[in-house]
Amino acid sequence: MKLFVAACSAFLTIAPAVAADLRQQIDGYRAAHETAIVGQLDELTRLKSVAADPQGLAATAAHLEGLLKARGFETASWSAAGSPPVVYGFFKSPTAKRTAVFYAHYDGQPVTPAQWSSDPFMPVMRDGPAGADVDWKAAKPPFNPQWHLFGRAAADDKSSITAFLAAFDALKALHRQPSVNIKVVWEGEEEANSAHLDAILKDHAADLAADLWLIGDGPVHQSRSATLYFGARGGLSLEATIYGPVRALHDGHYGNWAPNPAVMAAELIAQMRDSEGRILIPGFSDDVRPLTAAEKTAIAQLPPVEDSLKQEFGTGRSEGQEGLTASTMRPALNIRGIRSGQVGAEAANAIPVDATVSVDFRLVPDETPGHVRAKLEAFLRSKGWTIVTTAPDAATRTAHPRIIRLSWGGSYPALRSDMASPAAKGVIAAAEKAAGGKVTLLPMMGASVPIYLFDDLFHVPVIGLPITNHDNNQHAANENLRLRNLWDGINLYAAMMAELNW
Amino acid sequence: MKLFVAACSAFLTIAPAVAADLRQQIDGYRAAHETAIVGQLDELTRLKSVAADPQGLAATAAHLEGLLKARGFETASWSAAGSPPVVYGFFKSPTAKRTAVFYAHYDGQPVTPAQWSSDPFMPVMRDGPAGADVDWKAAKPPFNPQWHLFGRAAADDKSSITAFLAAFDALKALHRQPSVNIKVVWEGEEEANSAHLDAILKDHAADLAADLWLIGDGPVHQSRSATLYFGARGGLSLEATIYGPVRALHDGHYGNWAPNPAVMAAELIAQMRDSEGRILIPGFSDDVRPLTAAEKTAIAQLPPVEDSLKQEFGTGRSEGQEGLTASTMRPALNIRGIRSGQVGAEAANAIPVDATVSVDFRLVPDETPGHVRAKLEAFLRSKGWTIVTTAPDAATRTAHPRIIRLSWGGSYPALRSDMASPAAKGVIAAAEKAAGGKVTLLPMMGASVPIYLFDDLFHVPVIGLPITNHDNNQHAANENLRLRNLWDGINLYAAMMAELNW
Repeated sequence: MKLFVAACSAFLTIAPAVAADLRQQIDGYRAAHETAIVGQLDELTRLKSVAADPQGLAATAAHLEGLLKARGFETASWSAAGSPPVVYGFFKSPTAKRTAVFYAHYDGQPVTPAQWSSDPFMPVMRDGPAGADVDWKAAKPPFNPQWHLFGRAAADDKSSITAFLAAFDALKALHRQPSVNIKVVWEGEEEANSAHLDAILKDHAADLAADLWLIGDGPVHQSRSATLYFGARGGLSLEATIYGPVRALHDGHYGNWAPNPAVMAAELIAQMRDSEGRILIPGFSDDVRPLTAAEKTAIAQLPPVEDSLKQEFGTGRSEGQEGLTASTMRPALNIRGIRSGQVGAEAANAIPVDATVSVDFRLVPDETPGHVRAKLEAFLRSKGWTIVTTAPDAATRTAHPRIIRLSWGGSYPALRSDMASPAAKGVIAAAEKAAGGKVTLLPMMGASVPIYLFDDLFHVPVIGLPITNHDNNQHAANENLRLRNLWDGINLYAAMMAELNW
Repeated sequence: MKLFVAACSAFLTIAPAVAADLRQQIDGYRAAHETAIVGQLDELTRLKSVAADPQGLAATAAHLEGLLKARGFETASWSAAGSPPVVYGFFKSPTAKRTAVFYAHYDGQPVTPAQWSSDPFMPVMRDGPAGADVDWKAAKPPFNPQWHLFGRAAADDKSSITAFLAAFDALKALHRQPSVNIKVVWEGEEEANSAHLDAILKDHAADLAADLWLIGDGPVHQSRSATLYFGARGGLSLEATIYGPVRALHDGHYGNWAPNPAVMAAELIAQMRDSEGRILIPGFSDDVRPLTAAEKTAIAQLPPVEDSLKQEFGTGRSEGQEGLTASTMRPALNIRGIRSGQVGAEAANAIPVDATVSVDFRLVPDETPGHVRAKLEAFLRSKGWTIVTTAPDAATRTAHPRIIRLSWGGSYPALRSDMASPAAKGVIAAAEKAAGGKVTLLPMMGASVPIYLFDDLFHVPVIGLPITNHDNNQHAANENLRLRNLWDGINLYAAMMAELNW
């Protein structure tokens, strides 16, 4: 259903304030409105926008559309094949010559409530990442910026949506006319592989004419400095099952003779990937586009974070010696999980019947999911594996020495866009004003967001505008947003709306 | 508590029947008593003699002691430090010059009832390994010998106890005087590593003076022929936990850099053991005593079973090319289970926090558990691992690149005894009479039973007298005994009681 309302200018057109002042002005506005801004995020987080709750997704989309409409945006709600709606908004600025699309997603990862310290949809403020509860509604601002608000999607991406709305409200209160026309694309299916986004964007390509996409997703650099990223790795998931005997066999009577699928799985993993992160599959990296000199320089200039992260993560080593960001510029073969037989009190002296390995590939330009699949399957065949896609029957099992069942999951390619385009230079300059200094520039985010789509469809620069803390527990229990990151995010969004020019 | 009753001779002393006749006579007795014999096994199987039920173990022991006493055995019940009782029995034969101890265990493996087709302690007869239920109590004997009785410990070892009792009853009914003095040691802690058996045997060494131990445990050869074994592998269990980051990390942002414990576990397994069953740890096999020429000959004469087992197990290969029995003459490093992260619908794009591997070593002469432990730990250190025995604290985690927590479980060494001793020759001759032909001779059973103890303490031959079908699902769900095996076992036990002489 399309819901268009006439756009209206909520801004008075006045002379722009001095650029250096904007940051102070936004800080002042935010300081006076901290309770309302956190209240906005709290309210959004209470909406159960997870794939398991289609009604929650629909209600969230309707709420967001209302928020845009109330601010004078022309709005619409777009879906395809029953997908969660994409919330669209458009705010035209009379003086702007460029148009920027602000993308974020309002859906959150699935939750396992038992793993959470509190209800994922009843936000709780704590005075640190593992701190005591705080009654922020009763507290007098300014809030301690080291407080964290806990809740599913509070960081990923409702923090970006909240920062966008607060920045827009601040500019309005400050009578600042946007320097660009603003379009909004808030997606509800990002955590489910954006299965319908391509179709929806194609259907509405005319509405999405723009000069730039800004992606409100992902965390800032681990140094906690303001960050822009110019690409993201792609993804490809795989579940592989390796078959042993049809029933668990006594490992005293049959061990050393009956094939042990846990051992076969371990051997295969070790053949594919070593403990330094190197992928050992022949030809796997043939399609990898080398980093440019500018990208290498950007990586070399990143603040060092490795030692503090090892402390934070309780690890005594890293994979490889390149450093975090350089490591994530390469393709990755991540093992997400292994299950075979039993361990602990349930362990029996038995050869397991199978072993299941869950794999998460991260792709870099110019790999394609199809090529990665083909290379892995060719590698398996070269090692004597018979590939099946359904559970093998008795005849199949006895006819082949090594049987592996592959269930390929969702996938999309990576993107790295030009860090030196005019639009990129404009975004960097605006971000530096918001940050009051240099910002961290990442050629590519290690995580995956389907931003290749925007490049593929619209052929305009795509730049990441992350605001959440790196330790936000994104995709895990106890997801949280640090308030300082929200405050910085409001400054960043305000600069993108008021000071972006190229 | 000791409970001695005066032994009395329940047998009339008459001239022995012609040896060739005994088999037919026992068959005749059994045919007339099938309902009662299966009833005995059914009754024993209903007793919940599992480690989780100490009262069930005590009740089973008391019941068994009563069965022996009723048959004229001097009996006792021995424990140490609150262990389940060892049921002891002694039946003196006026004409015997030798004494044989009949060992079996009455405890069963733990159960996971949800995995069973029926209550593990409510025995059910079926007309095949996966057949339809049979109302055997209403059926008219002779029963179909391909029926299987399902229940925990129905095979391992209550079938041996039932065969022993039925053979004894048959000989009494046939007025056959035992050719050996009979001692009984029925243990209740074998499935829990026989933790107190050594102490109990030492405490009662005087009562256990004998010339031979016969071990009523384990399955017959997969060819289903009557079998004797002259040793058993030892065992040593290990649970190893490998540590990754303290919390699950997004594998897009941190994969290729933060150590992945699932990969480290796979790499370590592949370094220790290949998919052909070879142990790759340097020096691991230094203590292995070579097979004798007689043992090699015995293995070469075994009926081939590999092809039919591959069909039965649904496997298209074996580990190694030596054949089943030769493979199980070597030490084994069995992986019983692996757990790391999540698979399937629960898989998240995260680097797991740890990986747990459950390992079951099988030892051969002259390996000792202590040497195996030392060799593995030296190997781990050579590969850069820091070994801990409790969960590492934050300082430990960040100080060491690779941390592995080892929890060593119960252990005991292997035994291979002389296949050509006078006692062994006597046992083989008696078994051949029971079988009406050649029997299968295994130098060593692949599975572990703590028979090294009997050798260590008493320095007399120790020979295995298995009766259960190889496909009895021992240690797994739906454990079962094939009736033909019980019938053959009664013949074998009768021959050991009435025709054993050397």
